Amino acid sequence: MRIVIIGGVAAGAKAAAKAKRVDPALEIIVFQDESEVAYSACGLPYAIGGTIKDPNRLVIRKPEAFAKDGIQVLTGRRAVALDTAGREVTVRHLDDRREAVVAYDRLIIATGALPIVPQVEGVGLDGVLTLRKFGDLARFASVLDRLRPKRAVIVGAGYIGMELAEAFHGLNIETAIVEKFPRILPKFDPEMAGLVHERLAERKVELVLGDGLSGLEGANGRVGAVVTESGRTLPADLVVLAIGVRPNVELAQAAGLALGKTGAIAVDARMETNVPGIFAAGDCAETVDRVSGQPVWLPLGDIANLQGRVAGENAAGGDARFPGVFGTAIFKTFDLNVAMTGLSEQSARAHGFDPISVLMKRGDRARYYPGGLELNLKLIADRRDGRLLGAQVIGEGKADKMIDIAATALLGNLTCRDLENADLAYSPPFSPVLSPMIMAAGALSSRLAGVAD
Amino acid sequence: MRIVIIGGVAAGAKAAAKAKRVDPALEIIVFQDESEVAYSACGLPYAIGGTIKDPNRLVIRKPEAFAKDGIQVLTGRRAVALDTAGREVTVRHLDDRREAVVAYDRLIIATGALPIVPQVEGVGLDGVLTLRKFGDLARFASVLDRLRPKRAVIVGAGYIGMELAEAFHGLNIETAIVEKFPRILPKFDPEMAGLVHERLAERKVELVLGDGLSGLEGANGRVGAVVTESGRTLPADLVVLAIGVRPNVELAQAAGLALGKTGAIAVDARMETNVPGIFAAGDCAETVDRVSGQPVWLPLGDIANLQGRVAGENAAGGDARFPGVFGTAIFKTFDLNVAMTGLSEQSARAHGFDPISVLMKRGDRARYYPGGLELNLKLIADRRDGRLLGAQVIGEGKADKMIDIAATALLGNLTCRDLENADLAYSPPFSPVLSPMIMAAGALSSRLAGVAD
Repeated sequence: MRIVIIGGVAAGAKAAAKAKRVDPALEIIVFQDESEVAYSACGLPYAIGGTIKDPNRLVIRKPEAFAKDGIQVLTGRRAVALDTAGREVTVRHLDDRREAVVAYDRLIIATGALPIVPQVEGVGLDGVLTLRKFGDLARFASVLDRLRPKRAVIVGAGYIGMELAEAFHGLNIETAIVEKFPRILPKFDPEMAGLVHERLAERKVELVLGDGLSGLEGANGRVGAVVTESGRTLPADLVVLAIGVRPNVELAQAAGLALGKTGAIAVDARMETNVPGIFAAGDCAETVDRVSGQPVWLPLGDIANLQGRVAGENAAGGDARFPGVFGTAIFKTFDLNVAMTGLSEQSARAHGFDPISVLMKRGDRARYYPGGLELNLKLIADRRDGRLLGAQVIGEGKADKMIDIAATALLGNLTCRDLENADLAYSPPFSPVLSPMIMAAGALSSRLAGVAD
Repeated sequence: MRIVIIGGVAAGAKAAAKAKRVDPALEIIVFQDESEVAYSACGLPYAIGGTIKDPNRLVIRKPEAFAKDGIQVLTGRRAVALDTAGREVTVRHLDDRREAVVAYDRLIIATGALPIVPQVEGVGLDGVLTLRKFGDLARFASVLDRLRPKRAVIVGAGYIGMELAEAFHGLNIETAIVEKFPRILPKFDPEMAGLVHERLAERKVELVLGDGLSGLEGANGRVGAVVTESGRTLPADLVVLAIGVRPNVELAQAAGLALGKTGAIAVDARMETNVPGIFAAGDCAETVDRVSGQPVWLPLGDIANLQGRVAGENAAGGDARFPGVFGTAIFKTFDLNVAMTGLSEQSARAHGFDPISVLMKRGDRARYYPGGLELNLKLIADRRDGRLLGAQVIGEGKADKMIDIAATALLGNLTCRDLENADLAYSPPFSPVLSPMIMAAGALSSRLAGVAD
């Protein structure tokens, strides 16, 4: 019995390990088109900024370590064709381009996502980069070393763009961010995104919003400026294309596997595709939003790990379920911790809920205890039944704790009335006597009950 | 319509504020037998250790601030008798011992808890202290200043005892803890409590366990040693009696109010006693443990605030509910964060559950990201249905975050299968890719499913 896994970064690596533990007798082969497997893509911005001194620390597990567990990891090989009827994958060796056909009993597709590279003039210039794969780090290192950039333009105000803006600031590279959408962080409600906008502006990050990338100018093969759709020219000796990613589904699509509404591979709760015995997990797979019930594509490392675990267990003969996501996400930019879970007020309304919300600014410790930091917490519930719909937390304080409480509350399908009497941990070094989350839930409950908070 | 509130520290102060907001037309009088109201008792150990430089910062709100909101706060007055039929409280002015009879329409009893002071020889000696009330800080300051203690004995290995041990360490006072129970932290399972025991031992805190206080010796009115029941003599020029507290229910009991099994005042979910119109909240009131369903007495500041809010709203004519507690608690000792929620494995068994548990040691950030700290996490579920029963977290890392996730999971009545697919916030500065809580829940789920984790 052989399981073949295509892709070995997060979902693929996790699936391989889990399948082998569930059934040690299985033959497991992982094909990976990069030189490394099992690395942390989310850590890449921190390796560029120097927070992580040794980029090799991002590699969690080497192929040899997998081999010791009886898992064959074959790097530098890309799956180029899939025959679902014959249960065979054609794999191309990227060094010599020779192809081999490999049979499988069960297949796990974990091909991840690819950075969107706009086909504008100049994308091939030296100094124009994307950041997605481990190998991109060497390209960044080379550009930083050779070109000694003084001014960067990041195209796209997503998480990675903002993490990189902080990294560049630390490297004394002046930075502008170009974003086609009229504001940053469209998944956050405007007043929350505004807090991040302000912080970026304070730290002298130039924000060019509502304006897309039109082209790249350069001289002697080296990038010199970004030209925007509105016609602005932004000088830049380093350009990062961080517009976003798209699910890497070409192989699956060509093989006739069904894609979902979002364009990612459709799977059921067992992470199985429409072809029995073929699973998909991680950034190439679609999932479901547990608040709205709608299909969603959420290419994040932790979700990839969770899905990989489920796909691995099921490919090995188990019966695990992945119930979907709440869209929980967090990132850090310029000492601001920015987190969300569930729906924003805007998206709640768009999904037919009747949201009410509260926004509070609170410290994350007892006021008199030193070291406390501020949090802005927005909590959203449905007016009709008080059911929690989402939360957004932004501040220098413990946003991760707040958002994990909210994400767990969503998991429990709790109402604001439930949460206002949560029994959370209090002691002055850790929290105000009533957690900001309890205060926010209490304010929503009082509003629903028509009493003063 | 007049609401009288007896006691104004946590529950009483909160109840007064909430009642006034709910109905600004109410007359509200708070009687308090100390000079301050609305202070943080939980902050007291940190004022002694010097973490909080100005003890007055522990006072959240002065009587004058309450007065501005139309709430009368009368300090230095103790309620000494209660006539529930006539709806009158007799209040004694502690300065001149004159008494006055005050009528009420609704009454909130928030008399808190009192430190247990064993009636052994020498408890009146100079240098023998308890720490419970704001006024105790001045006594501590005086003793530290006059007696310049070099060696302290803390009687009782509870949270306050251990917080004080850390404070004394910072003041270069050698410390021993005497505890009648054979180990510290009986509410924690032994292997978890052992981690704290080790840390205290490392920091040269002498632990005298399974041995009670027999008496105190002194000379010239000043304490010199603690004598234990086994006959040991421990030299001490400072002794803190931190054996525990008992609910302050004398007034209520004398007035015929029903007490619960735990000895605290019995209340319903509206925080109302057996006498309609009389509420009790905070450390004097009993509540219910939401995991076991049993009555429980949990004298903690955050619970007092939650209960005060409910009692205040209801006394003002509202209809709020306090659903009970999960026994969540946290404290810090010698850089170790020590937290629990729900039942321990031991207590789960005692309550008729069939607990299984997992204990994991994990970092609280991605391994490669600097600044991560360690956590020991024990997660407990019921073998029969996977329902989560409790968690304990001990370590230098973010124990507060982990325990709040667990406490919210208990609130949602989640199983380990639910929690293993929680969508928690991941980014390298904040968490490992899969939260320790997810890893622990996954391990329990796998065990229940009979598959390898």
